[in-house]
Amino acid sequence: MKLEVYLSGEIHTDWRDKIIQACQESDLDISFTSAVTHHETSDGAGDHLGAEEKQFWRDHKSAKVNAMKTKTLIERCDIAVIRFGDKYKQWNAAFDAGYCAALNKPYITLHSEDIIHPLKEVDASAQAWASSVEQVIATLKYISTK
Amino acid sequence: MKLEVYLSGEIHTDWRDKIIQACQESDLDISFTSAVTHHETSDGAGDHLGAEEKQFWRDHKSAKVNAMKTKTLIERCDIAVIRFGDKYKQWNAAFDAGYCAALNKPYITLHSEDIIHPLKEVDASAQAWASSVEQVIATLKYISTK
Amino acid sequence: MKLEVYLSGEIHTDWRDKIIQACQESDLDISFTSAVTHHETSDGAGDHLGAEEKQFWRDHKSAKVNAMKTKTLIERCDIAVIRFGDKYKQWNAAFDAGYCAALNKPYITLHSEDIIHPLKEVDASAQAWASSVEQVIATLKYISTK
Amino acid sequence: MKLEVYLSGEIHTDWRDKIIQACQESDLDISFTSAVTHHETSDGAGDHLGAEEKQFWRDHKSAKVNAMKTKTLIERCDIAVIRFGDKYKQWNAAFDAGYCAALNKPYITLHSEDIIHPLKEVDASAQAWASSVEQVIATLKYISTK
Amino acid sequence: MKLEVYLSGEIHTDWRDKIIQACQESDLDISFTSAVTHHETSDGAGDHLGAEEKQFWRDHKSAKVNAMKTKTLIERCDIAVIRFGDKYKQWNAAFDAGYCAALNKPYITLHSEDIIHPLKEVDASAQAWASSVEQVIATLKYISTK
Amino acid sequence: MKLEVYLSGEIHTDWRDKIIQACQESDLDISFTSAVTHHETSDGAGDHLGAEEKQFWRDHKSAKVNAMKTKTLIERCDIAVIRFGDKYKQWNAAFDAGYCAALNKPYITLHSEDIIHPLKEVDASAQAWASSVEQVIATLKYISTK
Amino acid sequence: MKLEVYLSGEIHTDWRDKIIQACQESDLDISFTSAVTHHETSDGAGDHLGAEEKQFWRDHKSAKVNAMKTKTLIERCDIAVIRFGDKYKQWNAAFDAGYCAALNKPYITLHSEDIIHPLKEVDASAQAWASSVEQVIATLKYISTK
Amino acid sequence: MKLEVYLSGEIHTDWRDKIIQACQESDLDISFTSAVTHHETSDGAGDHLGAEEKQFWRDHKSAKVNAMKTKTLIERCDIAVIRFGDKYKQWNAAFDAGYCAALNKPYITLHSEDIIHPLKEVDASAQAWASSVEQVIATLKYISTK
Repeated sequence: MKLEVYLSGEIHTDWRDKIIQACQESDLDISFTSAVTHHETSDGAGDHLGAEEKQFWRDHKSAKVNAMKTKTLIERCDIAVIRFGDKYKQWNAAFDAGYCAALNKPYITLHSEDIIHPLKEVDASAQAWASSVEQVIATLKYISTK
Repeated sequence: MKLEVYLSGEIHTDWRDKIIQACQESDLDISFTSAVTHHETSDGAGDHLGAEEKQFWRDHKSAKVNAMKTKTLIERCDIAVIRFGDKYKQWNAAFDAGYCAALNKPYITLHSEDIIHPLKEVDASAQAWASSVEQVIATLKYISTK
Repeated sequence: MKLEVYLSGEIHTDWRDKIIQACQESDLDISFTSAVTHHETSDGAGDHLGAEEKQFWRDHKSAKVNAMKTKTLIERCDIAVIRFGDKYKQWNAAFDAGYCAALNKPYITLHSEDIIHPLKEVDASAQAWASSVEQVIATLKYISTK
Repeated sequence: MKLEVYLSGEIHTDWRDKIIQACQESDLDISFTSAVTHHETSDGAGDHLGAEEKQFWRDHKSAKVNAMKTKTLIERCDIAVIRFGDKYKQWNAAFDAGYCAALNKPYITLHSEDIIHPLKEVDASAQAWASSVEQVIATLKYISTK
Repeated sequence: MKLEVYLSGEIHTDWRDKIIQACQESDLDISFTSAVTHHETSDGAGDHLGAEEKQFWRDHKSAKVNAMKTKTLIERCDIAVIRFGDKYKQWNAAFDAGYCAALNKPYITLHSEDIIHPLKEVDASAQAWASSVEQVIATLKYISTK
Repeated sequence: MKLEVYLSGEIHTDWRDKIIQACQESDLDISFTSAVTHHETSDGAGDHLGAEEKQFWRDHKSAKVNAMKTKTLIERCDIAVIRFGDKYKQWNAAFDAGYCAALNKPYITLHSEDIIHPLKEVDASAQAWASSVEQVIATLKYISTK
Repeated sequence: MKLEVYLSGEIHTDWRDKIIQACQESDLDISFTSAVTHHETSDGAGDHLGAEEKQFWRDHKSAKVNAMKTKTLIERCDIAVIRFGDKYKQWNAAFDAGYCAALNKPYITLHSEDIIHPLKEVDASAQAWASSVEQVIATLKYISTK
Repeated sequence: MKLEVYLSGEIHTDWRDKIIQACQESDLDISFTSAVTHHETSDGAGDHLGAEEKQFWRDHKSAKVNAMKTKTLIERCDIAVIRFGDKYKQWNAAFDAGYCAALNKPYITLHSEDIIHPLKEVDASAQAWASSVEQVIATLKYISTK
């Protein structure tokens, strides 16, 4: 089964690479997509549209340029994997989860056990909670090949 | 103009009361709705469905019971106000924002200036960012009466 | 919170009456709806449209007349309660559950523990599983009043 | 006419194989999809996400993993064939039918004459009722080639 | 059960009046709506927008003004009754049926037995075929009161 | 511009062939689709599902089998061409037009001047009215190549 | 027939008042809604959210606050009347027309004959073009009372 | 990331060519679409459907033929670029923006600084405002390749 999988959330660890590599090694028919994961590039996505003195507007312009990409990819995908790490606020990851939920689009959350409680609303609409990258890979493999 | 406004997010301060009271004092035709804001009640929303040994499943059941309420209220509302305070993860607030965005439902964010950057994706899909309760009240008053 | 609740499934026990009565006694702002629950009336819903020799077409006409009622009520409701008893096939109850799931409409299943396994797909899309009428009542009371 | 056909329901007989083989022999431009049909594999679809003591949660996790596959396939398909055999509860098949009906997606039911009555609601929303695999094949052949 | 019922089709007989009167006499909670049924008024619905020399444009303007009414009423209604008489082309009635079908909105056809064949596609998407006004009344009474 | 064009209506003249041939000769990137246009084949589309004594049910089964094809093709197409000839009732053509209108899908009507009046509602929702096959071809050529 | 009518466009003449007054005098069951029509108020709709040095951001904030009102009103309305005067760019009026068209929501344009050509795309999706306020009133009266 | 980009608005300058050429030179995986940009051809798009004496109907027919193309392309595209130049009314460009907004489809506006104020409603729903072709190119390059 051919799948398009959107990888949302944490950008400071290599969880995306691990999933992509493992799925490629297993020859799964999955194409992975993602927001821009280079932090500075993403923060400056709107800089070419003109400088802003206020932080709010600089962020606003960049976030809106990035949203053209992410919104399109989320709407295209069959399944999303949404990763919450142990740093930063990661509100954009929770935002993506809500977006998926409203579209009735299935998603898997990936986070450690110690943040179960604050993520209970996000997990409640998820199709699966994985606490390791290996579990995500096993899930995608199951869906794609069985 | 009659409005139904959903108040999402932070439950540990009295921002909801302030907005509701000010709108009532101005005789605005607005009905406000909200998730259950009593922390322990919300956490135990699913307890009557049977005890769970694992925290994940207790949270899961409660979050799903609460979602029946919040999902319905979000879909009914004309405008949402989404509050991010300075404590806790508040991923459910960001989740609600994403849900609204996917439904093309307008929302106002309410948060202080120091969290502009981590909220940039949430703000990018918002119709307004307010940094004080008074600004939210003024916005609702404008929409409802002008 | 005002709710419209659709009661689907088993028609041979008094679970509907119990829920309705308990909610009325608690003065909950809930209006309950249901398919025609009188077995013979429901089976003959299409008889006035002309007699049929084949069982298939008699059933077909009646089921389609009933569907005008149930489909409209399901689309109007905020929450559905779907009851699986210990007799009969009850495929219409599972059908209603699937209908709700596709519309992203929340539903509660009500069934005993011994049929957890065959109902796993139906429960997987539900917002709650109740094994007693009292649990359904408590859930509706929570959603409606907290 | 190119078609994607989803085969839902009974997993203990070879009805899927017969349909697929006959359509291939006739060179029809149809791609068939299906849930995981190996019983034990399907029941354990969520086992890699962690062991559960309670049967409900084990089933729940597996059903949700499977739903990521089935939901996606149902939404992709042009036509579904939904098979009710003479064993088991088969509520998932009726659930799929309801899901199709809500999406206004055409489906064919496949079942013997003795269960016409309990399936009347499911048949009422179907585009065709077939009592033999040969009738399904003839229907698909007609749609695909005429 | 409160219903809004749209009455579409034939305007040269009193079938609408009979249905409305019978339902009122039975105190059914049904509000009936309809296109403009006075032939000349309907044909001249756009005349106040300026005279046209060509018949096509006069018809076009009138039909579009009427469509603002009918489209709104069809989208509001719970059930439509679509009447085909023995005169005229009545393509607007078939058009309304197609409109309902695409919206997944239930409708009842009302026509005599001699036009079963040319109406087979329209009947195939209907929830019921009635050959007499009395059958329509009985159907609405069933849906509204049982 | 690549287009999928659905050809609906009259099956007793060669208007489809003329359009298809002219578009092929001009090398337009258009794929044409259609219902089954062989009258007897279409009328017997459901015969393999079992004989029926009543004309209504034979027609019903065939029309529903055909609808699996036509509904899918209409929903896939970019533009529909809907032809009304001078014979027969052609309610299925008007039904298709209504179906397109509700889906906000553009269609072109093709009919002679003498039936402008009875088709005014159908034309009012059309994007163009053509009175000759040549006009349809010119329209498709314009859309596809300019 | 009860209607909600949204009045969009030109704010420098009294066309709104004339329509509302005439409909009230005829006791039509129509409620009219509108964006904020006081120019300075509308331009400063976002000023309470904080001052901006750049004109773009001041306009942006005000336009987004106003959009919460207009978007909600357009989605609620049954019919829109969109007025193009002889001054200013009036791109917001054309924007509202496109918004209505995508929602399949009927609208009437109101403009003089000399701007037929630049408004041809807007008129092409309209249900009626009126060149005088009286024509709009006559149209609403027809829809509401016939 | 593969994109389909619709270019809407001004047809009297070479902004489209510049964007297309720059994206091709950068080997971006973008396919560009557009309305017919040859003024006279576009104005006469409906002429083959028969001559009209009144300007309104000539424009009407042409605009509707063009709409079959533009509506389809807008619904297909991932992102739209909407250009407002310094000449003409350009209401069709604003109409396209409103159409995109209602479909929740992202668009970029392209216009000079001196028309910020009249375009504030159009910009308020845009994902980005560019004042030069180079900024549009940089934005598309970012979305397509990062």
